[in-house]
Parts: sequence; C-alpha cells; structure tokens
Amino acid sequence: MRVSTKEFHVPDPHYVERIRDSFNRQGFMRHIGARIEELGPGRCVIAVDFREELAQQHGFFHGGLVGALGDNAGAYAAFTLIHANQSMLTVEYKINLVAPAQGQTLWAVGEVVRAGRALTVCQTRVLAVDDAKEAQLCGLATVTMMTLTSRGDKK
Amino acid sequence: MRVSTKEFHVPDPHYVERIRDSFNRQGFMRHIGARIEELGPGRCVIAVDFREELAQQHGFFHGGLVGALGDNAGAYAAFTLIHANQSMLTVEYKINLVAPAQGQTLWAVGEVVRAGRALTVCQTRVLAVDDAKEAQLCGLATVTMMTLTSRGDKK
Amino acid sequence: MRVSTKEFHVPDPHYVERIRDSFNRQGFMRHIGARIEELGPGRCVIAVDFREELAQQHGFFHGGLVGALGDNAGAYAAFTLIHANQSMLTVEYKINLVAPAQGQTLWAVGEVVRAGRALTVCQTRVLAVDDAKEAQLCGLATVTMMTLTSRGDKK
Amino acid sequence: MRVSTKEFHVPDPHYVERIRDSFNRQGFMRHIGARIEELGPGRCVIAVDFREELAQQHGFFHGGLVGALGDNAGAYAAFTLIHANQSMLTVEYKINLVAPAQGQTLWAVGEVVRAGRALTVCQTRVLAVDDAKEAQLCGLATVTMMTLTSRGDKK
Repeated sequence: MRVSTKEFHVPDPHYVERIRDSFNRQGFMRHIGARIEELGPGRCVIAVDFREELAQQHGFFHGGLVGALGDNAGAYAAFTLIHANQSMLTVEYKINLVAPAQGQTLWAVGEVVRAGRALTVCQTRVLAVDDAKEAQLCGLATVTMMTLTSRGDKK
Repeated sequence: MRVSTKEFHVPDPHYVERIRDSFNRQGFMRHIGARIEELGPGRCVIAVDFREELAQQHGFFHGGLVGALGDNAGAYAAFTLIHANQSMLTVEYKINLVAPAQGQTLWAVGEVVRAGRALTVCQTRVLAVDDAKEAQLCGLATVTMMTLTSRGDKK
Repeated sequence: MRVSTKEFHVPDPHYVERIRDSFNRQGFMRHIGARIEELGPGRCVIAVDFREELAQQHGFFHGGLVGALGDNAGAYAAFTLIHANQSMLTVEYKINLVAPAQGQTLWAVGEVVRAGRALTVCQTRVLAVDDAKEAQLCGLATVTMMTLTSRGDKK
Repeated sequence: MRVSTKEFHVPDPHYVERIRDSFNRQGFMRHIGARIEELGPGRCVIAVDFREELAQQHGFFHGGLVGALGDNAGAYAAFTLIHANQSMLTVEYKINLVAPAQGQTLWAVGEVVRAGRALTVCQTRVLAVDDAKEAQLCGLATVTMMTLTSRGDKK
C-alpha cells in the first residue's frame, strides 16, 4: 500500500512577506508578544515567551492561549498555499490540552494536512520548551480553514 | 418521551468568591481585559470590550480570542459545581467561528450540559454585541473539563 | 441585549421528499436500520432501535454509531435549507459521549445553529430512550456542512 | 530543541488476545464487517471492505462509518497500553473528512499521541485504498479516551 503524498504548490512567491504583513496587522498577536519563527510551504511556527500576563491561575500558560496559538499557526500554514489575491478564515478549530503548558517558551508548529480548493485542514502541535531546551507536547490542534477567492487579506 | 433534566447541585456555597478569586489569578484574563459578568449554578458569562489589541488583521476580534473566551466561560461554568477542595482542568475544546466577531463587546455564555463525577461537558455561545445592543452569535464552543479531586484550585 | 435569531428560509418546497430519497439511497442507514422520524426547517430527527448488531462490547449502542447518527441528523437538518439543485457534504464533526448509550431506541435530534452561504453549522443531541419512554442525553455533536452549488444530490 | 518522546509501556503481555476478544464482542464491528489488521504498542489498524451496505447516497463509504472507524482504531490503540484489569471508554472524538472515502478498502490507522494516567489522546488517519493499492487520506480523527480502573473490559 502506497500513501500518495501531495507536494505543496506555492502559487505566491512573495508569501513570506505577505504573511508577515498579515501577522503584524494582528493586534492580538502583538499584545501577547507572539512572533513567527519559521515559514515554509504548508508550515508555520509561532513562538511566545512566558510572562505572567499569559498565565492561568496556576502559573502555566493559559489553555485559551495554547488554543489561540494552535489556531494561528495552523491558519498561517494554510496561508502559505494561497494566491496573493486570496484570503482565508478559520472555520473551526479544536485542541486537546494533553499536558500542562509549563515552560519558558511556547512553540506552535502548524502544518497543512490537506489543501483543497475551498477548504484546507491543518494540524498544530504546541510544545512547551524549558530552560534546558527540552520540549514537551502540551497541545494538539486541528484547524479547518476556508479560502476566500474574492479578495486579498488586506482590510 | 420525557427528557430527564438534572438539577444542578452546588456543593460549595462560596462558589462565587472561589471562582472570582481563581479568575483574578489568571494573568491572561487581566491582560485581555476580560471580566465575569454573571455566575450561577452551571453558568458563567464572561465579557470583554473591543480594543485594537484584541483584533485580527481585518479589525475584528481575533478568532483565537473567541476560542479562549469560549474555553474559559465553559470552564468556570463547570467550576460552579465542584467542591471547594477540588480543581478542574480543560481536557479539550472545540469552537466553530460561525460569523465575524465584529462589535463593541464580546459575550461568552458558558453553560454546563452534563456534569459527571470525573468529566463535565459545557457549551459556550460567544456573542458579538454592537452599539445598538444587538447580539449576533459568532462562536459556538464545546468544552470538556476534568475534575481533580486531590487538591483545590490554589497554586 | 437582544439576540437576533434568523428565521430559516426553506427554498425547496419539496425538501421532505428530496431528503427522504437521499436518505433511502444511503445503504449504511438501511444497514443499521435507521429511520427519519421528523423533518422540519433546519431540523431532522433520526431514530434506530437497539439490536445486538449495533452494540459495543458491553451491550450498549456503539459510540461510533452514536457519532454516525449525530453526523447524519445534523447533515439532513442542513439539507432542509438548500435548493433542489444543490448538495452538501460533511466537512467535520465532533461528538462528546456524555453517558452510556443504553436503552431501547436512540434518537438523534439535529438542528441548524447557523446557515451560511457556503457553510452550515448544526448541533445534534443524541438521546437514549428506555421502555418507560424516559430519555437521557448520551451524545452531543457539532457538525460542519459545506454546500455544493454545482450539482444536486443525485449520484 | 529536543522533543522528548515517551516509549510506550505495555503492562499487559496478553494485550493482543484481550483486545481481539473485546473487538469480537462488538456486534457493530461484526455488522459492518470490520477486522483488526494490526496491533502494536500504542497502535491499532482496522480495515473494512466496501459494500453497498456501508455507502452514503453517492456510493462512497459513509462519513459516519469513517468516523466510527476513526473512533474505534484510536480506542483500541489506547487499549494496548492499559492493564488487564482496566477498561476504557471514549470521552469524545472529532473527525475531519478531508476527501471522499472512495475505494475498495478503508484503513483506519490509530496511534496514541499521549497516554496519561486518567486520559489518553489518540489520532487516527483513515485511508481509502483502491485496486492499485494506492491509498488516499480521507479522514483525520482525534480521540480522547478515559481509563476506568475499577473493572476490566468484560461486560
């Protein structure tokens, strides 16, 4: 049995700038101090360092934040595969919080599982990294994105 | 056919203070400016006013924020039904973003669907309210919570 | 605060026959012995009686069956709101199994939460009904459907 | 950055017989003609061949069946890691149907992502395999399982 894998086609050669520009216009990402660490075809990694402003009541990263990063890393992974004159929106996402998000930095590694004409499905693994650079999986998200063909991503 | 509904039993008479105290220890909720608007047996309403710091790239509330409020309102709805010496954590949540979260205030109305000994399932409707006090459903979340019996909610 | 509710518009006056015809062409629904109990605008109720062929290892309805009914009742609730020359497919669904599905009959009550041009979101409550006609909630599903405009539902 | 992976510990040396016995007591799996193709630590593969009795209205495998296999392959992947005197139940599952489930055989490849004391999270990739043994991903499921410590899996 052979599993046919699809090579990702990147129709916009300027996708890195386009996505960084979109990310920078997200006030919420600035407010939480998130940054894009890596962009590639069908892939986006977002990181954020721990601050008390991001904590839940026990001093770990808040689960709502873990989900928000899971959503956004999956979303921009999908954004790498659209045309410059298209945009996308999140249809839904779900996240399992499999361990406490305890550490110095949170990494959200979003990857496209299947890119369709109308819908794209991504998965994001959220990792908590401690001082010793040991990473532990703390969240696993699935994100469904819809492509909007009528307009670009500008407001 | 009769659907048997369970009256919610509230074992901790001081649940309002307990939950407000827990909420106030969440740096993330303070950072985004969220407040508890209402607490009742199996019910929690959280609100947050629009600021540019909470926006995505088109100027609406960020979908990750909508999910974070969906998680937290469901979580504290579940918290109303536990004993003072118990705590809870979010196992997983899922949110459908059914319309743009556009408006002046976001309301997350969390309600317990089924409270079990180990697990509690909640639903949160997230509403965007505009100047004319018209509310539109923008998010629908399901939240699975687990009760920790060994310890209270303090750090 | 007023929550604006949308009246459901039913563009196809013959939606009942159209849906019954589609349902009858689903070999899987026949194989498990499911029947449509009720159809209305944005609403579909499917029922199935217990048989050993539908059980898991402890003699209750199988969780996979509970999910399949949750999917299908939500799907046909959405089908009530499309045009005769359209079709739909399930994008994703999620089900919480909140209690053992133990009883004589399983009822899946699917209702549209939000009908959009491209996507429709539904919820299904799955109830297990015993001999005394007492119903207990055993499953809660959210179903995301996509409308296909290019073609009807025929094969 | 190193991601620490957990080696799966298999506490029951007779897990293969225990799981096959449990699977064989599921009337629903017999009814749909499913079989276990592979069992290993944290892994279970279930297959089912196409029949008209498993179809939706367009002649593909029914989405509800794809979800049921996604649930069950994930569930038994988790079952490989429990003690002989324990049992498990599905808390919730969610599945994205990323392509039509069209082919001769459906394979559900369930794998444990994280095994905890109380909860275990699994993922299942469901593949549709055609005559030429070409496999296409048609479903991606996440399954949350809860361990019951008080009793074994027998009825």
